[in-house]
Amino acid sequence: MSTDFEPGRETGGSGSHGPAPDGSGGRRDFLKSALAVSGMAASLGAVEAPPAQAQPGRVPGTKNHYYLPANDKTVHWGYFSKSLRPLIEVDSNDFVTIEVLTHHANDDAERMIKGDPGAESVFYWDKQRKGVDRRVAGPMKPTLFGRGAGEGLGVHICTGPVFVRGAEPGDILEVRIIDVRPRPCANPKYKSKSFGSNAAAWWGFHYKDLLTDPKPREVITIYEIDASGERNWAQAVYNFQWTPQTDPFGVVHKIIDYPGVPVDHRTVKESHGILKNVRVPIRPHFGVLGLAPAEADIVDSIPPNYVGGNIDDWRIGKGATMYYPVAVPGALLSAGDSHAAQGDSELAGTAIECSLTGTFQLIVRKKDTLAGTALAGLNYPLLETQDEWVLHGFTYPNYLAELGADAQKRIYEKSSVDLAMRDAFRKMRHFLMTTRGLSENEAISLMSVAVDFGITQVVDGNWGVHATIKKNVFAGS
Amino acid sequence: MSTDFEPGRETGGSGSHGPAPDGSGGRRDFLKSALAVSGMAASLGAVEAPPAQAQPGRVPGTKNHYYLPANDKTVHWGYFSKSLRPLIEVDSNDFVTIEVLTHHANDDAERMIKGDPGAESVFYWDKQRKGVDRRVAGPMKPTLFGRGAGEGLGVHICTGPVFVRGAEPGDILEVRIIDVRPRPCANPKYKSKSFGSNAAAWWGFHYKDLLTDPKPREVITIYEIDASGERNWAQAVYNFQWTPQTDPFGVVHKIIDYPGVPVDHRTVKESHGILKNVRVPIRPHFGVLGLAPAEADIVDSIPPNYVGGNIDDWRIGKGATMYYPVAVPGALLSAGDSHAAQGDSELAGTAIECSLTGTFQLIVRKKDTLAGTALAGLNYPLLETQDEWVLHGFTYPNYLAELGADAQKRIYEKSSVDLAMRDAFRKMRHFLMTTRGLSENEAISLMSVAVDFGITQVVDGNWGVHATIKKNVFAGS
Repeated sequence: MSTDFEPGRETGGSGSHGPAPDGSGGRRDFLKSALAVSGMAASLGAVEAPPAQAQPGRVPGTKNHYYLPANDKTVHWGYFSKSLRPLIEVDSNDFVTIEVLTHHANDDAERMIKGDPGAESVFYWDKQRKGVDRRVAGPMKPTLFGRGAGEGLGVHICTGPVFVRGAEPGDILEVRIIDVRPRPCANPKYKSKSFGSNAAAWWGFHYKDLLTDPKPREVITIYEIDASGERNWAQAVYNFQWTPQTDPFGVVHKIIDYPGVPVDHRTVKESHGILKNVRVPIRPHFGVLGLAPAEADIVDSIPPNYVGGNIDDWRIGKGATMYYPVAVPGALLSAGDSHAAQGDSELAGTAIECSLTGTFQLIVRKKDTLAGTALAGLNYPLLETQDEWVLHGFTYPNYLAELGADAQKRIYEKSSVDLAMRDAFRKMRHFLMTTRGLSENEAISLMSVAVDFGITQVVDGNWGVHATIKKNVFAGS
Repeated sequence: MSTDFEPGRETGGSGSHGPAPDGSGGRRDFLKSALAVSGMAASLGAVEAPPAQAQPGRVPGTKNHYYLPANDKTVHWGYFSKSLRPLIEVDSNDFVTIEVLTHHANDDAERMIKGDPGAESVFYWDKQRKGVDRRVAGPMKPTLFGRGAGEGLGVHICTGPVFVRGAEPGDILEVRIIDVRPRPCANPKYKSKSFGSNAAAWWGFHYKDLLTDPKPREVITIYEIDASGERNWAQAVYNFQWTPQTDPFGVVHKIIDYPGVPVDHRTVKESHGILKNVRVPIRPHFGVLGLAPAEADIVDSIPPNYVGGNIDDWRIGKGATMYYPVAVPGALLSAGDSHAAQGDSELAGTAIECSLTGTFQLIVRKKDTLAGTALAGLNYPLLETQDEWVLHGFTYPNYLAELGADAQKRIYEKSSVDLAMRDAFRKMRHFLMTTRGLSENEAISLMSVAVDFGITQVVDGNWGVHATIKKNVFAGS
């Protein structure tokens, strides 16, 4: 696939796994320009990007807090890549605030793009050019399906990557999620609100199993979220059935087969007054948060993997800590697919897809310090909350390595909750034996009586099952 | 299968779906003798069976509270049957306290049987006879595998059934779980303690996927529970690997292939000091609680079904309410498979199998009163807690009807979490559309953003996925 790689933005080039060398347009220039940005609040939790903050860099007045705005220069759309030039380079223990744009913003541009310079730059698309041309991991010349550059194989707008100094393959990157905030709507018409889109799409679990006509169909539901944080629920605004949408290049999208296609609202019928009195508890989190894998370059962002990515576990929100195995130097962390709420299974294919901004602390756990800790032997994404450990199993734990050269295609033919359950079982057994010193017999008995297995998602090719054990199980020690 | 039916205790005979006619040894005699029992505390929640309480019947001093002790006359072992003679007949809104014995008590008879007249009568087994001969749903002449009467096809010791007056097919039986208490150990050596057994058995999800030798193996872990209720955790006492056990009839059980086989502790090696400092949060509940199905007689108690049975959801405990579709006149409720704790998935094949006593209120919801309520169109077991609705999906929602004459064999060849997920999705969609008046589009969007799907069990042939929606989702109305 590397021969097709015409990146959507400048990269370090194939084979360059480290930070870009100094030079024109390189990483260090980003840092320099960041230092010139003024007027930004310096205290944690109050960091908001001023309109002038178009460049990634250190938050003025701080020594260890960086800010990554989301715009056409800072996002990679629909893929992870070990060759991407890092936006910033940070030390272990530094903080990074990352803006994430939902790839569904063009489902209702009035509410999710208009007046927002970052979003406008990313979604820009006229007859001549797109703000971000490459969307996703497929070939840039859309020979396969004619959908557009990248072919829609991968969908998430990811901001990053962040290069973490000292992170090497074999280490673990600890990512503490300090804060998660909705991105306020920039259209004055909808002041102090945020919006998200839920697409019941062709890749949803329900799609071939509909009761009512027309069958099949795709339906978009727009939800409203309170941007001030006063309300802890979302509510539906309206929905519409997807109709064929013609993008500015003239390609007709009969189904949702390419991300960021602008929906022409003159062609759809909005139904308002839906889900009346229904309050969806918000669970703001990042569907995609993870590192660049080593096994392939330009990796579809949809299937989650051992380095994280599109895990789609709503627990990956404020207060949680994630641990990821580092596969390439610098770890190369990116965030995307921000969600205001999601249920376990993400049944219809998406959550409430809603732009969010997160603040993270990044800590390198060196491989020679892991023995005897909860991270010993960790080779999958692990979540820690105040009360629980949550282990993530997948149909294939490392599909890129397991499914051969065609892995990125084949994984979609092999989706299985049954296999994800097996993987989650094996991982929890390993966790209990390795980090708690239990025998296999002890671990298996404990799993049967005290570990809960849930269905993370059934829509990302590499389907997920998570295994949860409460920390108080070990409180007797 | 009816030609093989030589019941373990008196029944109403094949084809008799109602209460037994008056007569010698019949139901009304039970009631009469119950009235003669004295010395029983009458207030709810303080009802304990005195040693003299050998007969099912009304609690003296009450008008609407019945008591079902567990003994060789009151249990049916390993099967549901619409032909079983009811132990008692109650009115809608009456209370019933039901003792349930774990079928794993003979894993450690010293701790779970000795000194307990009810348990001793059920587990009695010498060279000449068993206290309860029929164990389970298979043929009484053990021609298939030579394991013993009933062939081990079904395992749970069920107490019941209870005939609820006025309950007819098409109605719903509401079962409010008022209280659940551990059965105190009757052996003075272990005063104020209760015990349970966890078997990591051949039907467990892990069995063919073991890491360490010997492979395969079955392992029993004995857990201790505080019978006084002061501690809310269980802890392991010891474990042992199953060795071939010779039952009193001389049959050798190389694996755990027949329930209630006494373990000769001189033949096993107890490992004490295991799971040190591990505290398993207790979740006392009934693995089996449900009604007699109409589709077949003598139905294996292992696969759960639309009338409930072995759902193995740990939420079916104190404070929860279950709703079951009534399939036969009188509903015929039984309880079994009591658990002190279980994780979602019941990974290794069993929970902490522990004798419990439950108090239930039984309420008939007539079919013509269900429209517009949460029970409209209900055709599966539904759980309600203070905060949630939990719907139970299975690989096959009604396997007895769907899999033909051999359904009870075939269901074990078709276990699948993927299919159970599909069933849970369909049921939740039906629930939201029928009881909340949502359109299909609304229901599917809401499921994607606010419904959690979890793995109930992967060990009961008809594997389970439960779908949970929080009630506060509808709090805006």
